[in-house]
Amino acid sequence: MGIVTTPEYELYYWPTIQGRGEFVRLALEDAGAAYLDIARLEGKGKGMDAMMKLLGRRSDPPFAPPALKWKGGLVWQRANILHAIGPTLRLAPRDEATRVYLLGVEMTISDLINEAHDTHHPISSSAYYEDQTSEAKARSKAFRQERIPKFLGYFEKLVGRKAMLMDRHTYVDLSLFQIMSGLQYAFPKTMTKLAPSFRGLIRLQKRIAERPRIAAYLESDRRVHFNRDGIFRHYKELDSAR
Amino acid sequence: MGIVTTPEYELYYWPTIQGRGEFVRLALEDAGAAYLDIARLEGKGKGMDAMMKLLGRRSDPPFAPPALKWKGGLVWQRANILHAIGPTLRLAPRDEATRVYLLGVEMTISDLINEAHDTHHPISSSAYYEDQTSEAKARSKAFRQERIPKFLGYFEKLVGRKAMLMDRHTYVDLSLFQIMSGLQYAFPKTMTKLAPSFRGLIRLQKRIAERPRIAAYLESDRRVHFNRDGIFRHYKELDSAR
Repeated sequence: MGIVTTPEYELYYWPTIQGRGEFVRLALEDAGAAYLDIARLEGKGKGMDAMMKLLGRRSDPPFAPPALKWKGGLVWQRANILHAIGPTLRLAPRDEATRVYLLGVEMTISDLINEAHDTHHPISSSAYYEDQTSEAKARSKAFRQERIPKFLGYFEKLVGRKAMLMDRHTYVDLSLFQIMSGLQYAFPKTMTKLAPSFRGLIRLQKRIAERPRIAAYLESDRRVHFNRDGIFRHYKELDSAR
Repeated sequence: MGIVTTPEYELYYWPTIQGRGEFVRLALEDAGAAYLDIARLEGKGKGMDAMMKLLGRRSDPPFAPPALKWKGGLVWQRANILHAIGPTLRLAPRDEATRVYLLGVEMTISDLINEAHDTHHPISSSAYYEDQTSEAKARSKAFRQERIPKFLGYFEKLVGRKAMLMDRHTYVDLSLFQIMSGLQYAFPKTMTKLAPSFRGLIRLQKRIAERPRIAAYLESDRRVHFNRDGIFRHYKELDSAR
């Protein structure tokens, strides 16, 4: 897993946060893929310099990280990367109809991620949290009371009583694990209160955490801890059981 | 085009706004596809009732409109629909690498659309604009000064001096037309001021508007006008040349 000598995948993502890149890391780790987490490495063609160079390249630069070099090409946008590499990693079937179904769910996860980010930055992502705290409280309240129930209620409906979303393990299951973990970190009181409504998702989350490669990854130093620079951030004043 | 007797496509979207559904309408219209805009029609299996029934169905409901019935299946999430139907409509090639490239750009358009929506609803999408106007002003300022230049600057870089994004006409060109039109409607002062920086996008927008089927569509009553219920909304107080 992780870093080997002949990597097939080069991930370009911020080195100190889970963020949107974590969903790609989880897929690569779960599949046991040989990959380099470029910005977290040192040396020629690695580190933050290499990532900034990629973002600034003249021909078809990605809009933002994460981006993945693979098969001589570049794929970017979180859900797009998972969609693109899913079949090769055996985390998605090859038939178009199922891939499109999974992508629809994964894009909905993207919407939830964007909204989770905006709970702490409702006015401007370039301004400090401290300068938009009162707006963050208002947005977080709406997020906790309306949006988390709406998104997770939807995913719970899709999962139902099954052990996973589809009749086979896919990248969407890994992403659902990550959003549950992120929301529990950021909004522990809310998620504790809501837990009875999301038994299927919590069961799925537990099952994913127990997959041998994921369990090993979560214990390793390749897993960045949640922190206040990522998408899911814990601020006591933004969480509540009400 | 538009409505014929044997439609291959059934679009489910809010009947009184352009919104996210408009990007799908533009693709279907440009391709001369036979489609039904279900919620805008009357009769059995049509109208808002039919859409609400689809949203509430037990098995694999879409999270939100737009959704498209096609080939006996259902595709949803705006960018996913365009990705899925692109090759059949001859609005995307069939090779996977190019499809993934286009999808990355289209997902970035989704991000811009979400942010455009949040300019008038920065706190809660279920609350009235009038109850979040001061926050909307602050968010709009950041959107006008930082986000529009960032997103459009990126798309302008991709388009460059070309007549379209790729060496062939794709659904992304149609989407770029729509975001330019939407931003010009919502933020006329901002977009007039910024116009010199986005010559490539404005040229592309004009070229799309002149495509015969699009020109006919824009003149028809199938094109809903921009209004204050859609994604792109004009409020004088949210726009500024500064």
